[in-house]
Amino acid sequence: MARNITPKEEDYSQWYLDVIKVAELADYAPVRGCMVIRPWGYAIWESIQSQLDARFKETGHVNAYFPLLIPASFLEKEAEHVEGFSPECAVVTHAGGEELEEPFVIRPTSETVIGYMYSRWVQSWRDLPVLINQWCNVMRWEKRPRLFLRTSEFLWQEGHTAHATKEEAIDETLKMLEAYRSFMEEVLALPVVTGEKSEGERFPGALNTYTCEAMMSDKRALQVGTSHFLGQNFSKAFDISFQNRDGNMDYAWTTSWGTSTRLIGAVIMTHSDDDGLVLPPRLAPVKAVLVPISTDERKLEDMLLPKARELANRLEAVLGPRSVIVDSQFHLRPGDRFFYHLQRGIPLRLELGEREWDRCALRAVRRDTAQKEEIPWDAVDSAVPRILEEMQRALYERALAFREANTYHAGSFDEFKELLEEKGGFIKAYFAGGVAEEKAIKEATTATVRCLPLNDNSKGRCFYTKKDGGRLAIFAKAY
Amino acid sequence: MARNITPKEEDYSQWYLDVIKVAELADYAPVRGCMVIRPWGYAIWESIQSQLDARFKETGHVNAYFPLLIPASFLEKEAEHVEGFSPECAVVTHAGGEELEEPFVIRPTSETVIGYMYSRWVQSWRDLPVLINQWCNVMRWEKRPRLFLRTSEFLWQEGHTAHATKEEAIDETLKMLEAYRSFMEEVLALPVVTGEKSEGERFPGALNTYTCEAMMSDKRALQVGTSHFLGQNFSKAFDISFQNRDGNMDYAWTTSWGTSTRLIGAVIMTHSDDDGLVLPPRLAPVKAVLVPISTDERKLEDMLLPKARELANRLEAVLGPRSVIVDSQFHLRPGDRFFYHLQRGIPLRLELGEREWDRCALRAVRRDTAQKEEIPWDAVDSAVPRILEEMQRALYERALAFREANTYHAGSFDEFKELLEEKGGFIKAYFAGGVAEEKAIKEATTATVRCLPLNDNSKGRCFYTKKDGGRLAIFAKAY
Repeated sequence: MARNITPKEEDYSQWYLDVIKVAELADYAPVRGCMVIRPWGYAIWESIQSQLDARFKETGHVNAYFPLLIPASFLEKEAEHVEGFSPECAVVTHAGGEELEEPFVIRPTSETVIGYMYSRWVQSWRDLPVLINQWCNVMRWEKRPRLFLRTSEFLWQEGHTAHATKEEAIDETLKMLEAYRSFMEEVLALPVVTGEKSEGERFPGALNTYTCEAMMSDKRALQVGTSHFLGQNFSKAFDISFQNRDGNMDYAWTTSWGTSTRLIGAVIMTHSDDDGLVLPPRLAPVKAVLVPISTDERKLEDMLLPKARELANRLEAVLGPRSVIVDSQFHLRPGDRFFYHLQRGIPLRLELGEREWDRCALRAVRRDTAQKEEIPWDAVDSAVPRILEEMQRALYERALAFREANTYHAGSFDEFKELLEEKGGFIKAYFAGGVAEEKAIKEATTATVRCLPLNDNSKGRCFYTKKDGGRLAIFAKAY
Repeated sequence: MARNITPKEEDYSQWYLDVIKVAELADYAPVRGCMVIRPWGYAIWESIQSQLDARFKETGHVNAYFPLLIPASFLEKEAEHVEGFSPECAVVTHAGGEELEEPFVIRPTSETVIGYMYSRWVQSWRDLPVLINQWCNVMRWEKRPRLFLRTSEFLWQEGHTAHATKEEAIDETLKMLEAYRSFMEEVLALPVVTGEKSEGERFPGALNTYTCEAMMSDKRALQVGTSHFLGQNFSKAFDISFQNRDGNMDYAWTTSWGTSTRLIGAVIMTHSDDDGLVLPPRLAPVKAVLVPISTDERKLEDMLLPKARELANRLEAVLGPRSVIVDSQFHLRPGDRFFYHLQRGIPLRLELGEREWDRCALRAVRRDTAQKEEIPWDAVDSAVPRILEEMQRALYERALAFREANTYHAGSFDEFKELLEEKGGFIKAYFAGGVAEEKAIKEATTATVRCLPLNDNSKGRCFYTKKDGGRLAIFAKAY
């Protein structure tokens, strides 16, 4: 069935790029490692943005904008931070026709410059908490770029909060992790494991990093969102100090948390098939397409097209503005018109041919299963939202079942290696090692600790060091 | 009355900066010429974005994202363009720890890189028109920055369209100019003159530039949005060619149009007063604040605050989510609480004291006029929107009357100079000069041609060259 798409089984990487290409989601830019997000890909990003942003605002956060350029010296104020990020930075050395006295880096993340501003805004406990988020572009120079997953420039949001107490900052870190999890599961139909990062995978400068980890359809893991408890590291580096309720000076406790256009890559690799993109209905910018079909041009123009438009208007009143389109590409054959929308992942195709006309009905075809259902015109307002919700749930359940079917438990390193080689997927194992052991395991197998899952405090004998008291960890090969 | 605000009459520039400071709209960043847009300022930008974006989408445009970095060689492909922009560029010479083979500039505007992408996407007349807009940051190095009006980095939207015919591209240029005008007048309450730019003020690379020009409350002009007809200049430079309906190859006709965070500066300088920011209600992210007042803490907590919250919820159902706040800064004196919201420009203050409680009413106070009105609780749903619309109209009418009262006509250069010196404002005059005359007038008076207004094709004797057949032009000193 597929057109211009390499089958998944044949070459997963090429399949991924082909899906992006035929759906017109993105292109490589004429700048090494950078991408152009095309209108359909950007509409998906807008859908992510607006739904995540509403969740941020419901939890009391506000947006702001901080500068793109950061003085190079700012990065150096936090030792781990500069070590982690400076090798990836793009550097501005000239501006306005002159060489700069101090070079600027293009923000790879904004803890430093935001910390500098917070130190000016925060004086008293009454100024806390500061709950700010920023939607922006960031740059981390990539040697091996991959559209949406790893590009030198990407779009993201970065939340940066400052609190009067340690407890409040930890609560915030976990609250935003939970906001990510619920958004990803409810909107993106993306089952994620939430957990703590191991020492070797922490954000440079964080005391603790929490993560959402998803399994792609090739069984590899993808980190889709992180939330960091930064302790007082950045507030000490940038002097975010305040007078507390008792009149004493104290340093604020800060957090940061981010998700990016990588989420689009996760959606592609979780739900799509050999026909192209599959989008969960709650995410899809366009939820249904009405396709009038006839070989009789007069009937098309005078009967079917006006009826399709009328029904589309009725549906938009239920599903939202611009969420339903009418296909009038009459110069193409019906099969080509169907494929156009299949490849772009429109959740529901509503065909209106002469047979449907005679029956005062539409023929609904679901993108994920090709399941068909006749819907009387009178019932579109209720039937279409119902089918879309069924599809939303089905996508989530299918992805969850896939992850569960591909999650294993290893008791020893031999078992671990065998599972990894023969099965792939997520491998759960008790682990008591540190950074050195993580590194050795990675070198031997390419697998990394994805996270130490929350809500599982069981302890066991370490599969690698054989020490007792290991925490449950999930290992996988990751993007 | 004012607190921490220099009176407008005393020092206009300082007044402008003070209003920004007390309303917490923006701060200078630790990067020369760059700004931080603080949450309240950014909420205003979000309100501009969402309302402009809806207008773009209603007119068939879609959003996309193009790279921040542009190869330096791209700018050179259009001769006027590189001459206009390269002195203002910030240049990236190093990335990923290495010196780059070719430097990149941070986009000052994106005609070039977008032209490059369009040449890959457009093959046939069926691929046209391309109607794309981008919301992003841009950078033009500023020697004399001023918050919101001229900063090295700013946020904007840039529309870039490509069409099969010249007529269609000109129509698009004018359609988006009109979209700007209606948005500015209807939402920002900003009366603007729309017109054509003179040769000396055109966008580098454009055949024709159209502009929206507004008069600030110090009588100086501010260019608040431009729309450019680019002809085939960029499509020839970047080879945006296509097969037309007749099977022949042709170059596309392109346009571009933009507005920026400068609009926030325009709103400040048009409507605000010595008490601080004044926001038109349709723009204001928060349209009303409920202020419970009592010296009796028990009454505050048990009666007034719950009632205020109940009324705020009812109002939000009419005015939109998060558009009404309840002030509970009970540690401050009522006067300080009032001033906090006055300075931030909340359009309507709704006081709920014990006297109002006894009368089952609120006391509404309009931000622009301090006009008071008692509103029974039962009537808030209709009275509050009515007062807000009255205020919206009043702000527009006041600004329009101010512009009209400060617009003059000059028949000779002597009269022109006298008016400019004694009155300021907009000076209308017939003008038949070219770039050299524009430059001479600017050098002699600092005034520039703001535009040749649309919808006025009258001709007359040039005030400067004395030649016949001059077109009507508006001159002013401008930001």
